[in-house]
Amino acid sequence: MDSALLRHYESVRQRSLRLAEPLSAEDCCAQSMPDASPVKWHLAHTTWFFETFVLEPHESGFAPFDPSFRYLFNSYYNGIGARHPRPQRGLLTRPPLAQVLAWRGQVDERIAALAATAGDALRDLLTLGLHHEQQHQELMLTDVKHLLAQHPAAPAYLGRGLPAAPPSAPLGWQRFEGGLVEVGYEGIGFCFDNELPRHRAWVEPFELATRLVTNAEYARFVEQGGYRDPALWLSDGWDRVAAGELAHPLYWQRDGNGGWREFTLHGLAPLDPHRPVTHLSLYEADAYARWCGARLPTEAEWELAAQGQAVEEGSLHPDSAPRFGLSQLFGACWQWTSSSYAPYPGYRPQDGALGEYNGKFMVNQYVLRGSSCATPAGHARASYRNFFPAGARWQFTGIRLAR
Amino acid sequence: MDSALLRHYESVRQRSLRLAEPLSAEDCCAQSMPDASPVKWHLAHTTWFFETFVLEPHESGFAPFDPSFRYLFNSYYNGIGARHPRPQRGLLTRPPLAQVLAWRGQVDERIAALAATAGDALRDLLTLGLHHEQQHQELMLTDVKHLLAQHPAAPAYLGRGLPAAPPSAPLGWQRFEGGLVEVGYEGIGFCFDNELPRHRAWVEPFELATRLVTNAEYARFVEQGGYRDPALWLSDGWDRVAAGELAHPLYWQRDGNGGWREFTLHGLAPLDPHRPVTHLSLYEADAYARWCGARLPTEAEWELAAQGQAVEEGSLHPDSAPRFGLSQLFGACWQWTSSSYAPYPGYRPQDGALGEYNGKFMVNQYVLRGSSCATPAGHARASYRNFFPAGARWQFTGIRLAR
Amino acid sequence: MDSALLRHYESVRQRSLRLAEPLSAEDCCAQSMPDASPVKWHLAHTTWFFETFVLEPHESGFAPFDPSFRYLFNSYYNGIGARHPRPQRGLLTRPPLAQVLAWRGQVDERIAALAATAGDALRDLLTLGLHHEQQHQELMLTDVKHLLAQHPAAPAYLGRGLPAAPPSAPLGWQRFEGGLVEVGYEGIGFCFDNELPRHRAWVEPFELATRLVTNAEYARFVEQGGYRDPALWLSDGWDRVAAGELAHPLYWQRDGNGGWREFTLHGLAPLDPHRPVTHLSLYEADAYARWCGARLPTEAEWELAAQGQAVEEGSLHPDSAPRFGLSQLFGACWQWTSSSYAPYPGYRPQDGALGEYNGKFMVNQYVLRGSSCATPAGHARASYRNFFPAGARWQFTGIRLAR
Amino acid sequence: MDSALLRHYESVRQRSLRLAEPLSAEDCCAQSMPDASPVKWHLAHTTWFFETFVLEPHESGFAPFDPSFRYLFNSYYNGIGARHPRPQRGLLTRPPLAQVLAWRGQVDERIAALAATAGDALRDLLTLGLHHEQQHQELMLTDVKHLLAQHPAAPAYLGRGLPAAPPSAPLGWQRFEGGLVEVGYEGIGFCFDNELPRHRAWVEPFELATRLVTNAEYARFVEQGGYRDPALWLSDGWDRVAAGELAHPLYWQRDGNGGWREFTLHGLAPLDPHRPVTHLSLYEADAYARWCGARLPTEAEWELAAQGQAVEEGSLHPDSAPRFGLSQLFGACWQWTSSSYAPYPGYRPQDGALGEYNGKFMVNQYVLRGSSCATPAGHARASYRNFFPAGARWQFTGIRLAR
Repeated sequence: MDSALLRHYESVRQRSLRLAEPLSAEDCCAQSMPDASPVKWHLAHTTWFFETFVLEPHESGFAPFDPSFRYLFNSYYNGIGARHPRPQRGLLTRPPLAQVLAWRGQVDERIAALAATAGDALRDLLTLGLHHEQQHQELMLTDVKHLLAQHPAAPAYLGRGLPAAPPSAPLGWQRFEGGLVEVGYEGIGFCFDNELPRHRAWVEPFELATRLVTNAEYARFVEQGGYRDPALWLSDGWDRVAAGELAHPLYWQRDGNGGWREFTLHGLAPLDPHRPVTHLSLYEADAYARWCGARLPTEAEWELAAQGQAVEEGSLHPDSAPRFGLSQLFGACWQWTSSSYAPYPGYRPQDGALGEYNGKFMVNQYVLRGSSCATPAGHARASYRNFFPAGARWQFTGIRLAR
Repeated sequence: MDSALLRHYESVRQRSLRLAEPLSAEDCCAQSMPDASPVKWHLAHTTWFFETFVLEPHESGFAPFDPSFRYLFNSYYNGIGARHPRPQRGLLTRPPLAQVLAWRGQVDERIAALAATAGDALRDLLTLGLHHEQQHQELMLTDVKHLLAQHPAAPAYLGRGLPAAPPSAPLGWQRFEGGLVEVGYEGIGFCFDNELPRHRAWVEPFELATRLVTNAEYARFVEQGGYRDPALWLSDGWDRVAAGELAHPLYWQRDGNGGWREFTLHGLAPLDPHRPVTHLSLYEADAYARWCGARLPTEAEWELAAQGQAVEEGSLHPDSAPRFGLSQLFGACWQWTSSSYAPYPGYRPQDGALGEYNGKFMVNQYVLRGSSCATPAGHARASYRNFFPAGARWQFTGIRLAR
Repeated sequence: MDSALLRHYESVRQRSLRLAEPLSAEDCCAQSMPDASPVKWHLAHTTWFFETFVLEPHESGFAPFDPSFRYLFNSYYNGIGARHPRPQRGLLTRPPLAQVLAWRGQVDERIAALAATAGDALRDLLTLGLHHEQQHQELMLTDVKHLLAQHPAAPAYLGRGLPAAPPSAPLGWQRFEGGLVEVGYEGIGFCFDNELPRHRAWVEPFELATRLVTNAEYARFVEQGGYRDPALWLSDGWDRVAAGELAHPLYWQRDGNGGWREFTLHGLAPLDPHRPVTHLSLYEADAYARWCGARLPTEAEWELAAQGQAVEEGSLHPDSAPRFGLSQLFGACWQWTSSSYAPYPGYRPQDGALGEYNGKFMVNQYVLRGSSCATPAGHARASYRNFFPAGARWQFTGIRLAR
Repeated sequence: MDSALLRHYESVRQRSLRLAEPLSAEDCCAQSMPDASPVKWHLAHTTWFFETFVLEPHESGFAPFDPSFRYLFNSYYNGIGARHPRPQRGLLTRPPLAQVLAWRGQVDERIAALAATAGDALRDLLTLGLHHEQQHQELMLTDVKHLLAQHPAAPAYLGRGLPAAPPSAPLGWQRFEGGLVEVGYEGIGFCFDNELPRHRAWVEPFELATRLVTNAEYARFVEQGGYRDPALWLSDGWDRVAAGELAHPLYWQRDGNGGWREFTLHGLAPLDPHRPVTHLSLYEADAYARWCGARLPTEAEWELAAQGQAVEEGSLHPDSAPRFGLSQLFGACWQWTSSSYAPYPGYRPQDGALGEYNGKFMVNQYVLRGSSCATPAGHARASYRNFFPAGARWQFTGIRLAR
């Protein structure tokens, strides 16, 4: 196998450890809700993935680091067997964090040894494992943010303050002609099975907003009664508003002076008017769009607009002008689309247990496009399909308007 | 206004009464689950619809039959105001059934009087009200079936026995070429706003099964372990299987001799092998399709196949050969599609409170196409979009395979 | 058997029918919560009691009116067999009310025929059945009150207005010396097994309030922050206050002018300051007592005070001066005691399924003493032990203070 | 203040640390259910108790170690102010265990300094704080046992194996004459307010079993259908049996060979037939007693039998013959009584927030008497009143029969 992939392997694996560095073993063990997982669990599960899907079928004389981990750190692969119940991941005080780190080290060594002899055969599996780990790196951040947000002291994950965003550019509209287009991954690099096959789709002419909706814009929606007018809301969303579950983005708090502050990975901070609003459900994104006389894009529209664009990494700069005039496609917030998560025409899941990776979740979820400030560099693509239930708010989700 | 519409009005309104005839006032009052409504409530709500949306804005000197009914029998129109909580409809022992029937009579007379003088202006509203009432006629049947099914004696709604279905034809496949097609309602008759606008869509070549899946076929799926293999199921569906909530179609029971019986509107009956299987969730329909190496159709595929076909009314005869070889498009079971319920490109809801009729439900639901044995004659269309959550089973839902 | 008992039988059975007279078949069928039962169910269950426990073992050639009723109308007797789930009693639209009435008539005739020949052997069973029916007569009133209270129109069970109570007397205290006393039923009449055996108990000197707490007094507690001070509350009670479940007696509503109105069996009425406060949980009764520097009596204290007193029937007159100066012992409100419902020393339940009548409920409930305005004449006794969970509020429960 | 109390203080405080020694910081942070608390929380809360109730009112120039701890580690004292929600104690990854230990050390030094100058005035408060800490020491063991039991590997808290118990003696009966007795604490040592005032009670003659029910005896009850016969059960208990929640003592598991094993603080072990059965709800204890033709004792009966007996510390030896022939009164299992937890006649809670210690829980709980193998030496008394809801099973609860 070429050494570039192995260096990439080491780099990705190291980054997971770096993400855990600001956290104690206690921080890494707790689970704040069934949808979120402990950081230790993420560190273990990503290792389980390599041990189970790479080493077990390919390492001669394979023996697991600890046989009980097959059960403890299986996420949802029925093809692998039974697993620990998801809502109880926070009760796994054993193995301790130190042992999970030892496991990571041992698996990394075995992967390196295997790669040295295996030639190119493992390339696809390793690559999948690294993209899988990058997905969990984002979840480590969103899950630990949710955990810390439950603490009355609202402790910061990162000590240094949140930098102020540059002033947001005026919101413009970019027109696309649509027509009979192609969407889905095209190329020779990696993609997930849910991005395939590339296929034709008919898209009517449309416009996309040139940047994401900002905190200042969304605050106006809140202040002007956006959460009090049922005519703006999908029925399921209004039910949540009426039940008192939705009144503002997840981590917003009134600051006592008529303004807002927001819990961030850097702790509580005054709401930055120029940053894109984030931690919204699809219901809120949709209601905001209706309030503006706009709508959410379909995933085909979004992808069409993003095709051929360079992926901006981690950029919050809405004025960095990309080729077509659209900024913040990547690196700011995942962007809700109105498209439910469904198989592309001709979709075929991978064979075996890995076929459970994506396909079985294609119901009751909505597609998000782009990437967020928490997405690892190199992970995003124009054809990438992220997905969450319409009510999910703990991811870095935002709004790109369409019309 | 032309007298044909008024005659149609009388006919549709009469049919609602006929549907209630086999039932006592007690039967008409009870509510078996929050999703279902009492028959009396349906009789009242459909009358509320005419009083609120036709008489109130158009009748000179309008006064409601009873002002409290505006609150009691509003289903979900926030634009009209507050309403009685849906899960508590079964506690509305007042007004009594007799008073609801008197209300119906009075409203019918006022509608007739209004129609005599109003010219054609009310045509659209009356027509909408009648299609609305037909939708509730189907719900009266599915809701009362669910109520009676909760009773240990499994009482029959209809005394006479369920006739045996003729032998089912072999399942064949009809090929369609797809391409750049048009879907959505086209014509000068009535359609709901969600069927508009007619628009272009790209459809890859596909095949549809020539008839619905039968009870015998589905029973094989059950007996051969369909509910025991997680690889066949969407994740949300498997969660329900694992929790013991799904093990066979809703109204099936083991008969104690290795076979099945089924609760029907005619009471308990041996499972008819030739009838289409019904009362399935989307999860079950999807799992069955996967077990066969097939899939569910998209709504565009289904509509394309149905365009130009005569609507067969109430037919259970799978051997009645329509033009393209597809039978049971209409009149047997609603057919789950893999399409989530979403607005068509350019969709605009009606103005005012009637805009809540369809649009606000366009999330977390899946489209069903065709019509069922409980759908009133004249109500179905090739472009008709029925919709329910993926887990709903108390409607007459069935499976048309695609590939 | 003596004819007096048979006349009493007829009288009690007729009274159940009279209680149902103001209600339609729909009113009699609905169930407002799992703890409450439909009136039709009460009419049927009391008949089931006579058919099951009197006719079945004693009538020669016994055949049930309808074999399915054994299952449908069994309340909780495991010794009799399986039963319809309590929360689903409101779904029993079949048998219709008319058939239940026919059943009542037939059972009454058979009881009369049996009694004519049976001599005195059935006296005890019939007497138990009649006391059982009287208990359900009170539940018919409290359950239908709860049902009607759920209706937005707050319909009255009884048309005529609620008469104003005479002015309440000043609250005085009656002293009792206690000592080694005897409690439990003594005599040759009927009592439930839970009132036996009569036994000795040591009671320290105590005082009881001469009348019940009035609405006016309790309203002061509410207005002066009784529901805002956790120091007044048992922990379980405060949890309910903090969750917003307890803020005033069950059927009180603000009248919009700084006062209160109350839902009664006569419909909504201004709160009568002189009537005893009712529809309180034990938590509220206990908090009020603590607010006054008093406490709730034990059941032994209450019984000691009531021994030898005439049972006032249905009296709301707090100034009718009984022998010891205590009024409203009977006929106004059931009076919460601080005593948990437990077996008396040496308690033996009846043999057979009737042993389930009382004994198996002797946990997690508190004893109420006296009787209420809804208790049938002749049903109360000084030794009578009523019992409900501490949170129950839909019975006519009130407060007698002790210290 | 005398130095003996200070030495006792140091000893008790040290013991809490020793109990945590086998556990990692992760083990100490997790919470397995709302009723249980993390070990770290116990270590912090017991320190909070001394800081809040001893140092704050008595230390000159008092400043809290960390002001936020007042909120985080308040258990249930409304008089002290708001508090962190109990079900979320497991999310308190901050402060880390090390900081809680530092807090403990600082508070211990300040207490020592205060005691040196304070004379005897603080004696009562310090003594209460130490008994409070001992109660939490027992909870540390039962709570961590529950946590470890949730882990699929069933890890041991203590490495060394569970020693086999000596053969159990035959079960005998000890007769007591009862009469007008006195119960409640008498003496000059410490007791909780709920043990006062000592008061008279009338007790009929009774017999108590000379030892607790053993595992072997209880296993016979299980094998002979004790959990299948509703006639043995209180109604609330049977509901739990029927719902599948109760089928054997909490930590029992089938061993696959027709026997049982049990999860203990030493890990999984074969069920020891001679040890007293433990981890039972009141429902199970009561059903077992009924199955034997016996009953549970009242708390007065139990106390009468224990008066004047030496407290056996931590003894599992049923053959160590005490004066009256009763063994295992103390040091084996808490013994369910049939007495609900209620105030003694004339009970007065302490003034101020400490009045919340016991009084507000006197509803919906049952009294347990004696002490368990997890109770610290010196903590038990004949008059001691432990209390839990009837369904609680995670404490070391057992059965002493009465008749």
